[in-house]
Amino acid sequence: MNNCPIEKISMNENAIHLALNIISGKWRLKILWEIYTNKVIRFNQLQKNLDGISNLMLTRCLKELLEYKLVDRKQFNEVPPHVEYSLTDLGMSLCPILRSLEKFGYDVINQTRNN
Amino acid sequence: MNNCPIEKISMNENAIHLALNIISGKWRLKILWEIYTNKVIRFNQLQKNLDGISNLMLTRCLKELLEYKLVDRKQFNEVPPHVEYSLTDLGMSLCPILRSLEKFGYDVINQTRNN
Repeated sequence: MNNCPIEKISMNENAIHLALNIISGKWRLKILWEIYTNKVIRFNQLQKNLDGISNLMLTRCLKELLEYKLVDRKQFNEVPPHVEYSLTDLGMSLCPILRSLEKFGYDVINQTRNN
Repeated sequence: MNNCPIEKISMNENAIHLALNIISGKWRLKILWEIYTNKVIRFNQLQKNLDGISNLMLTRCLKELLEYKLVDRKQFNEVPPHVEYSLTDLGMSLCPILRSLEKFGYDVINQTRNN
């Protein structure tokens, strides 16, 4: 049975709920994943790839992800000027967690389907 | 930089959202963690340990966790009869995910606090 160290029994719910809050929500997960799979991506391309997201919503979500230090923003003052987004190391550290959540979700689907 | 295998780019959002849905919610996380730390626990003790949860809410949450196959329920027809709850292997598999979410939440708190 896959086990966690019992002696460290305490669990910081606030930290877990913060993490859940960051990942939940309709768009943040999609945005993080889109930036991740493109490594570096511009705002317009991001909006194009995210079917149905408004300019305002994408701007707001990016602002939140920047504040959480999950996303990096680079401004290029060329002609025309543009901005590129990429994941920070902290943002990248989310990737294996998403994989484990994905696998857990699959396992639940399979187990509940078999009965 | 901590990295995920790029070649497996797709992500099953439904599976992730199912996992997030199971973990989120005010009580399920607390219930899972309480059962985990006690290994085996009876309903009354569980309710006592979960400050403020009603009988109805605990019954409903346990029903959901049973349906998701995360919790096991054993009936003892002794005098007096009683029921014991424990985590299934699937429930136990959530434990390291909660740890990783907890760490991620801490990292975000620390990074945002340093700036």
